[in-house]
Amino acid sequence: MKWFHGGDWAEYQRETGFLPLDFSANISPLGLPAGVKEAVLASLESADRYPDPHCVELRCALSAQYGIPAEKIVCGNGAADLIYRLVLLLKPKNAIVPVPAFTEYERALSLTGCRINRILCKEEEDFLLPETVSDAISPETNLVFLCNPNNPTGRFVPAGLLERILQRCEEAGCLLVVDECFLGFSEETEQHSLLRCLSQYPPLVLLRAFTKLYAMPGLRLGTALCGNSDLAERLRAFGQPWSVSAPAQAAGLAALQDMDYVNRMRPLVKEERSFLQKELSEIGMRVIPGEANFLLFFTEERQLSQKLREKGILLRDCSDFTGLCPGWYRTAVRTREENLLLLQAIKEVLHGS
Amino acid sequence: MKWFHGGDWAEYQRETGFLPLDFSANISPLGLPAGVKEAVLASLESADRYPDPHCVELRCALSAQYGIPAEKIVCGNGAADLIYRLVLLLKPKNAIVPVPAFTEYERALSLTGCRINRILCKEEEDFLLPETVSDAISPETNLVFLCNPNNPTGRFVPAGLLERILQRCEEAGCLLVVDECFLGFSEETEQHSLLRCLSQYPPLVLLRAFTKLYAMPGLRLGTALCGNSDLAERLRAFGQPWSVSAPAQAAGLAALQDMDYVNRMRPLVKEERSFLQKELSEIGMRVIPGEANFLLFFTEERQLSQKLREKGILLRDCSDFTGLCPGWYRTAVRTREENLLLLQAIKEVLHGS
Repeated sequence: MKWFHGGDWAEYQRETGFLPLDFSANISPLGLPAGVKEAVLASLESADRYPDPHCVELRCALSAQYGIPAEKIVCGNGAADLIYRLVLLLKPKNAIVPVPAFTEYERALSLTGCRINRILCKEEEDFLLPETVSDAISPETNLVFLCNPNNPTGRFVPAGLLERILQRCEEAGCLLVVDECFLGFSEETEQHSLLRCLSQYPPLVLLRAFTKLYAMPGLRLGTALCGNSDLAERLRAFGQPWSVSAPAQAAGLAALQDMDYVNRMRPLVKEERSFLQKELSEIGMRVIPGEANFLLFFTEERQLSQKLREKGILLRDCSDFTGLCPGWYRTAVRTREENLLLLQAIKEVLHGS
Repeated sequence: MKWFHGGDWAEYQRETGFLPLDFSANISPLGLPAGVKEAVLASLESADRYPDPHCVELRCALSAQYGIPAEKIVCGNGAADLIYRLVLLLKPKNAIVPVPAFTEYERALSLTGCRINRILCKEEEDFLLPETVSDAISPETNLVFLCNPNNPTGRFVPAGLLERILQRCEEAGCLLVVDECFLGFSEETEQHSLLRCLSQYPPLVLLRAFTKLYAMPGLRLGTALCGNSDLAERLRAFGQPWSVSAPAQAAGLAALQDMDYVNRMRPLVKEERSFLQKELSEIGMRVIPGEANFLLFFTEERQLSQKLREKGILLRDCSDFTGLCPGWYRTAVRTREENLLLLQAIKEVLHGS
C-alpha cells in the first residue's frame, strides 16, 4: 500500500545529509517545551522498568485538566494509535468521513472493510463542512469521523452544524469521533470543543494529541476522551498493555504543567497565520481561510513542493488527499523568521530563480 | 478484563512512595547500556520531528546483524505491539498455544474470537514442550505460537521437536510465530534460534525484543523477522505509520553497536541463574531447570509474593498462568547482590521473621 505523509524529514536527510526546514508537519513552532525535555531525561532513570500500563499519573493529570473522570481517558502511542485501536475494536460496517481530511481515518477504516461515505467539502465553499453531513447519518451509520479544525483545510465545523451532527448521531445510535488534535492551537478552544458535551453524550470520543501542541511527535502521545467509560475500558484492553512509553508519560505530565507554553504559542500562531495568509495571497496563491496552525493553498505551480525540497524546505503536497487535485499544498505556520524563509523560497520558485 | 503482569512497580510506588526491588520483570540485570542512554538524550534534539515511519536506519542495522534483508524486518512499539498486530491482521480461526506461556498470545487471540488449542506442558516433565504439539497441527491450524525459551518456564523447545513443528507447519500451510525475546540471554542463541530457517521457510515469524535484552522496557522496541517479505509489508501497513518513537529508534541503533554489553551479560546470567537455582533448591523450592534470565519455582508458601512485597521486593505470582496453580512463582535472575537480598527475604518469609 502506497501512502505518504508530511514530516518525512528522515528521507530528505538520508538523501542529502542535511535536515530540512520542515513546513510539512503541523507542529508547534515553539519546539519542545524545556520542562518536557528535562522530564524525559529524568525518565531515563527508569527506562529499565516497564512503563505504567495504566498511565495512572498522567490520566489523573488529564482528568484535572479536562474536568472529566480518569476512567473516561485512554492514553495511546500517539492519537494515530487510538484511531486504529478504535476502528479495529468497533469494526464499523458503515462510516462517514468528510474529505479532504487526515488520511489515517480512511486507512484505518479500510483495514476492517468498512463502507465509507465520503462527504465532500467543496472548494467553492472554501472547504467548509456542508450541512448535508448531518442528513447522511442514518441508523445504518456506525461511526462518524470529524476533524475540528480539519486537517488539511484548517476549517472549523460550524458550531450549529456540530450540534446537529451530535444530535443526529444520538438519534441514529452511532459513535461520533471528533479529532480535536489541532484545537489547542486556537484561542477559541473552549467554544469549539465538544468537551462540555462529553458527560451527557456517551457515544462521543474526542481525540487530543500532545504530538502537535507540544512539538513532541517523536515521543508519541495521544489521548482519547470517551463519553462512555465502558468504551474507554474496552479501548484500553484492546491491544498491548504497554503502548505508552515511559518518556511519553513523563513528557505528557510535564507538558500539562507548562501552561505558559500554550499561552505564548496561541497568539504567535494567530499572528503568523495572518501574516502567511496575507503574504501568500499577495503572491497569487488561493489561500483557504483556515484557523489552525497550518494553511491550505492552491497555486498553478504543480512542482512547488519538489522545487522547495531542492532548496531544503519541506511542504506538504496535498494532491493525494481525496477531494484535492494537484496544485494544493499545506504549510505549517512557524516562526516569523522561518515563514520569511519559506516565502522567499516560494517567490524564487515562482520567478524561476 | 482482569489481567496483570510482572513489572508493575508503578502501583507499588504509588502505594508506598518507594521503588521496589523488582524481580517480577525479566529484564537484563546490567541495566540500560550507557550508549543507549546517550543516544536517547541526543534523539531529544529531534523529538519535535515525527519519527521515521520506515525505521530505515534501524532496519538496516538489524539487517546487518541478523543477515536477512531489511524488507523482512518490521519494527514495533515493543514485541507486544507486533503480537497484537500480527493477530489482528491475520485473524486466525484456529491457533495452537503451549501453556503455561506469556499471556499476551491468548489475550491477543481472544480479540479475534480465535479457537485456541492449548498444549499443556506438564509439571511432571518439568514443563518441557511435549511431542504432541506437532501432532496437533492440522490443515485447520492457522497459527502456532511458541516461546523459546518459554516464559515463564525458561525451557527451550527441544531442537528436534522444533524442526518437526516447523515441518508440520509447512505441510499444514500455517504460520509459525516463535517468540525469541529471551533467546539473547543465552550463550546458545545460534543453536536454538530459527533465524537460519527464515530464508527457506516463508511462513515463519521470529519475535525479538530490545526491551528485555537491553533493559529498556520503558522505551518500547521490538522486531518481527519475517520469512515472507509480503507478510512483513502487510504487517508494517497494518496500523499507524509512527508506532516506533524517536527515542526507541535511537536506542535500538545504539544497543546494536554495543556488542560488549551482551558479551558481559550472558556469562553473568548463566552464573547467577545457577546460583539462584541451587540456593532456592536448598531452601526447599522445586525449581524448574530453565535456561533463560528467570526461574520458575514452586513453594507451599502461597503468600510468598505478597509477603515479599511487604519487604519491598516484587516477585511474579504465576497462579494466573493457564496450567499453573497457586504456589508457582517466577523470579528474574539479577546481580549477585540483588539475588542475595531476594534469598534473604524469602528465608525470612519462610521462617516467619
